[in-house]
Amino acid sequence: MAKVGIMGAGSWGTAISWLLTNNRHEVTVWSIDAKEVEMLDREREHKSKLPGVKLQDGIRFTNEIREGIEGKDFVVLAVPSPFTRSTAQRMCPYVKEGQILVNVAKGIEEKTLMTLSEQIEEEVPQADVAVLSGPSHAEEVGKGLPTTCVVGAKTRETAEYLQKAFMSEVFRVYTSPDIKGIELGGSLKNVIALAAGIADGLGYGDNTKAALITRGIAEIARLGVKMGGKIETFTGLTGIGDLIVTCASVHSRNRKAGYLIGQGRTMQEAMDEVKMVVEGVYSAKAAKQLAGQYRISMPIVEQVNQVLFEGKSPAEAVKELMLRDRKEEHSALPWGEEDTDTK
Amino acid sequence: MAKVGIMGAGSWGTAISWLLTNNRHEVTVWSIDAKEVEMLDREREHKSKLPGVKLQDGIRFTNEIREGIEGKDFVVLAVPSPFTRSTAQRMCPYVKEGQILVNVAKGIEEKTLMTLSEQIEEEVPQADVAVLSGPSHAEEVGKGLPTTCVVGAKTRETAEYLQKAFMSEVFRVYTSPDIKGIELGGSLKNVIALAAGIADGLGYGDNTKAALITRGIAEIARLGVKMGGKIETFTGLTGIGDLIVTCASVHSRNRKAGYLIGQGRTMQEAMDEVKMVVEGVYSAKAAKQLAGQYRISMPIVEQVNQVLFEGKSPAEAVKELMLRDRKEEHSALPWGEEDTDTK
Repeated sequence: MAKVGIMGAGSWGTAISWLLTNNRHEVTVWSIDAKEVEMLDREREHKSKLPGVKLQDGIRFTNEIREGIEGKDFVVLAVPSPFTRSTAQRMCPYVKEGQILVNVAKGIEEKTLMTLSEQIEEEVPQADVAVLSGPSHAEEVGKGLPTTCVVGAKTRETAEYLQKAFMSEVFRVYTSPDIKGIELGGSLKNVIALAAGIADGLGYGDNTKAALITRGIAEIARLGVKMGGKIETFTGLTGIGDLIVTCASVHSRNRKAGYLIGQGRTMQEAMDEVKMVVEGVYSAKAAKQLAGQYRISMPIVEQVNQVLFEGKSPAEAVKELMLRDRKEEHSALPWGEEDTDTK
Repeated sequence: MAKVGIMGAGSWGTAISWLLTNNRHEVTVWSIDAKEVEMLDREREHKSKLPGVKLQDGIRFTNEIREGIEGKDFVVLAVPSPFTRSTAQRMCPYVKEGQILVNVAKGIEEKTLMTLSEQIEEEVPQADVAVLSGPSHAEEVGKGLPTTCVVGAKTRETAEYLQKAFMSEVFRVYTSPDIKGIELGGSLKNVIALAAGIADGLGYGDNTKAALITRGIAEIARLGVKMGGKIETFTGLTGIGDLIVTCASVHSRNRKAGYLIGQGRTMQEAMDEVKMVVEGVYSAKAAKQLAGQYRISMPIVEQVNQVLFEGKSPAEAVKELMLRDRKEEHSALPWGEEDTDTK
């Protein structure tokens, strides 16, 4: 049994508090919003963010950040990515040397192009920062539906400690040393989800979507490997796995915004209609910048950017993707000796 | 413009005849069924197998196999996998030295564990055998929805020749030298589609399905690489891409049979209800045999076999998959130096 703090009471933070309490850990959830804390303490359910999941009596809710950190064996950061850096700053005074922080949000900071764990390490240098990611809708985790994730950490010891803490018969956890690959896959996938949504909005079928997912992760992997991630990670649960879930989901904001754009709305109209932050729009910019910086060809990212920011017609973008130069699927694969035959 | 023969007038053969005629090739379709030939010639539509697709006047239909082969620049084999060997035998007398045969079906022969192109090469040793595979429902190709595929061939020259012949603004073709990887991915994916169907039938969600797809292709890749396929192929369009399409499709027989089993039917009841050959049932056996032969751990394949042939309850099988030994996601990835730290 561990003492666990959870920063943030959104849908994912709430689902994790339920999961870890089921695993017999002692859980304290911090929220910046005093009213939310009071409501959760009274209702034992987050009706707007994770309806239907009864939160166990043992969970403590607090508005005091210190109470979610001091004396905890590990602390889960589950705040939306735009608030990761500021939350880390706020946490810093209470974090002990070597204390484990597990980040579960995804994103890339627009100005610095830093991943979330990099931001946390900058703000809380004394922490042992790890990440948890994978194909895991909070709604399904809260219903106890079988789910798999990956813990990325700097040491095998930390990874295996967290694996043991999170794992249950409905939540299987793998370990990995590749924090960078995990974070890049998780944040860049939203650009491809936008593209898949656009294809759906244009009335295209499963063939097109499977192509976008497969070639999309190939682009992300090309970039991610140049940035220090491992190819295996992009082919795993936090890469293609998470991308599949996002592109299949009718709940994904990215997919939905893409769908509206495919149907003819402008980016702004789509964002207004979805009424929430569409992360993929920011990731699209970041991905394009990174592609330039690392000199990687990312044709899908390029076309998504042109549709979002240059008013290109989505149908035209798809046509260009289809008609680019004829290519090998993987340029690294060698052709046999018979290559020199004539016929 | 090329002269093309197509063996078989099923949904895929029919869709390809439409596609290649659109690309201005001269197409002759052979079917073993004289009534089908007569019907297609009269109706110019295959109402039971590919309804709604108007077949162009230029397409010739024939019951004489010789007419589909002699003088053709290449011949497409589009017969169901159980008939590949016998069709190849029948074709052999008319095939010229070096004539290109492109197989588009998928499967592994139960007795010999040979792929389809290996069977064709055994029966028609003078041919230049290639394959075409990828996420490509025939129904969607016939509607002109954007689709991507891969041509695998022994020489770059043959691959690029076929790429040029098939490619259009709705059908993008990549080339690859990895025929073995393409064929193994295409035939073994049906076992995973069965597993995904079972999870759906149990009422599990997108998290579970994404996990099965991602870990499923990892198993297939482990086996496929030992058998001589390339890892890149399994992460590409003919591997994960085709698997995604199959698991998403409500039309897939494999997914549907799995669904019924997940709901409590026995394998035989499910097969009776689907009323067609469920390839995944045979591939499951073949995969298990191959896993033993090559000493590869394939936990999903193993559990699918137990559910299909040993009456194991699907829910129990999922639970076992979730609770296996705690593992690294990719055992090849190294941990950093900090691994020796204590905490």
